[in-house]
Amino acid sequence: MWELTADDVEHLALGAALMGSGGGGSTRSARSLLRHQLERSGPIPVVSLTELAPGSYAIPVGLVGSVTVFEEKPLNGGEFARAVAAAQRYRGVECAAVLGFEAAGVNALLAAAAAAALGLPLVDADGMGRAFPELEQTTFFLNGAPLTPVVVADEKGAVLVIDGVDGFAAERLTRSAVVTVGGWGLIALAPQRAELLARTAIPRSISRALDVGRLLSARNQPRLLHDYGGRLLFTGKVVDVERSTGPRFARGSAVLEDAERLMRLEFQNENLLLLEEGRVLASVPDLICLVAREQVRPLTTEEIRFGLEADVLTLPGAPQWRTPRGLGLVGPRAFGYDVDYAAPGRTG
Amino acid sequence: MWELTADDVEHLALGAALMGSGGGGSTRSARSLLRHQLERSGPIPVVSLTELAPGSYAIPVGLVGSVTVFEEKPLNGGEFARAVAAAQRYRGVECAAVLGFEAAGVNALLAAAAAAALGLPLVDADGMGRAFPELEQTTFFLNGAPLTPVVVADEKGAVLVIDGVDGFAAERLTRSAVVTVGGWGLIALAPQRAELLARTAIPRSISRALDVGRLLSARNQPRLLHDYGGRLLFTGKVVDVERSTGPRFARGSAVLEDAERLMRLEFQNENLLLLEEGRVLASVPDLICLVAREQVRPLTTEEIRFGLEADVLTLPGAPQWRTPRGLGLVGPRAFGYDVDYAAPGRTG
Repeated sequence: MWELTADDVEHLALGAALMGSGGGGSTRSARSLLRHQLERSGPIPVVSLTELAPGSYAIPVGLVGSVTVFEEKPLNGGEFARAVAAAQRYRGVECAAVLGFEAAGVNALLAAAAAAALGLPLVDADGMGRAFPELEQTTFFLNGAPLTPVVVADEKGAVLVIDGVDGFAAERLTRSAVVTVGGWGLIALAPQRAELLARTAIPRSISRALDVGRLLSARNQPRLLHDYGGRLLFTGKVVDVERSTGPRFARGSAVLEDAERLMRLEFQNENLLLLEEGRVLASVPDLICLVAREQVRPLTTEEIRFGLEADVLTLPGAPQWRTPRGLGLVGPRAFGYDVDYAAPGRTG
Repeated sequence: MWELTADDVEHLALGAALMGSGGGGSTRSARSLLRHQLERSGPIPVVSLTELAPGSYAIPVGLVGSVTVFEEKPLNGGEFARAVAAAQRYRGVECAAVLGFEAAGVNALLAAAAAAALGLPLVDADGMGRAFPELEQTTFFLNGAPLTPVVVADEKGAVLVIDGVDGFAAERLTRSAVVTVGGWGLIALAPQRAELLARTAIPRSISRALDVGRLLSARNQPRLLHDYGGRLLFTGKVVDVERSTGPRFARGSAVLEDAERLMRLEFQNENLLLLEEGRVLASVPDLICLVAREQVRPLTTEEIRFGLEADVLTLPGAPQWRTPRGLGLVGPRAFGYDVDYAAPGRTG
């Protein structure tokens, strides 16, 4: 057990931004919400999966929807209590702790804000180990743990409960509910029993994000890569960006070059593939991170633009995702690319 | 207390069709579902509002969505139990009886089918006293009784709970949920406490529909009009029909004529206004019913077509609806017509 304080917010946000390129890691309103919550509540306990009492429940929370809308119309803080209360009432259980289903980007901050708002410990774990765009892309679903009831709460008091469907339909219904309530919703997934969560969740997500943030802030990229098994794939300049809005995600690709080489980056909300002359250098579920050279700051896919100079790093995805079943849910083919996952050993 | 049997289904359907011109009263699949349920369960008890035990709860149910889709993809009967179970679980109460929130059209039959499927008595009452297109157009909402949680169940097992919103938002969110699950949903509204229900609901809806069905079937229109305070406004032939699909409803108008007079009928799902030379002869919330002369069968608005000969009847809407507050929810202006409610005394 350790404590997260208001002084940790900037580092947590920086590290979380590296774990999620889909936007929101640096979101102003989530940082300020978390800082205010922590100033009010004082430091919150962060507990490991093994510190949860057997038989107790932890509830995964996070935001689903448009980060752009979220910045314009932020949370008021009451959503956490409404979502968790509805899940508890519907399932007939009390929850003893909170975790993020996605401890990356804005959702790492919101998980901590939820814990502070509810006066519950934050579990140092999550269901993605990075950012993914859809709810069924969680290790809960991968391991057969319940996703439903999914609760959607908005800032005005609406609460929607979605139950009786599989992970794919839960994602579809949640997305539709979020659009109906106005662009984003604070989501709670089914409360997870501690013993099951210890087998399904990805451990140490919060402490890793915080540590990565500190290393980025200290401009200690070598140590970051060493400690987390990462590699610097390329350093170059963005010379082309194309974007389109697909049925599911903001989709696009960018070309980066240095004096000798040309790289192609494919993204859909998140960076998903890095290719050199058709060869896959890195791919989802491993992380592909663009770090702006000037500010040592992770770039969201929305920020990629002509002329930016960036380091392209890769960090391994969680071991659970690099299994055949994991790759079926979150590998390149799950995003429509007709290529296999490029295991790090095979490249570079 | 009396009993509804499988032999009552055709009469109930016929009477319910007169109470709802929006389609579905004569729906084949609802009639056959109810007949099968009643053959399996045996006759079901129908209880009056005053026969409900104080402190007990009754739950309003019905279908929301497209009757056309419903005919192609009918209920499988499990929706009732799933919707009611979710409402009970979420609210933490047991329900002792079922009622239709709209004991008209297909929803009169489905309320009875729900009672049979759940093994609960059917309450001889409803929340509309006729058909209306929206959930907030119920006497529950009119009288400040809770509409939410609204539960939506589909035929595949999905269950959605909508809470924390007013009646208008509940309607909007329900409509959106129904579209997402595939065109229709079986709906349960908030369980209603017996004492409150006795003050808010419209009594005798089921016995009235059954009695009206018997009188129609016996071609005894004079007795029907006498017993229910109705009037025959006009008998004529449809000489023009126009339809458009609005943002909320299937909208249209028809012109009927006899040797001397020309009448204009305005409808939005339901028949809403009957006009003669700009003068309102009858208007919502009173019922305007077209009964085909040939078959003595109520016509849905979808069935209105050139050449049909019909009696145009009116029956008074429930007294609750004819108050200033009631007219605010379901009067002509609530449907966008710039005319006042035409109280029967002022016309004819």
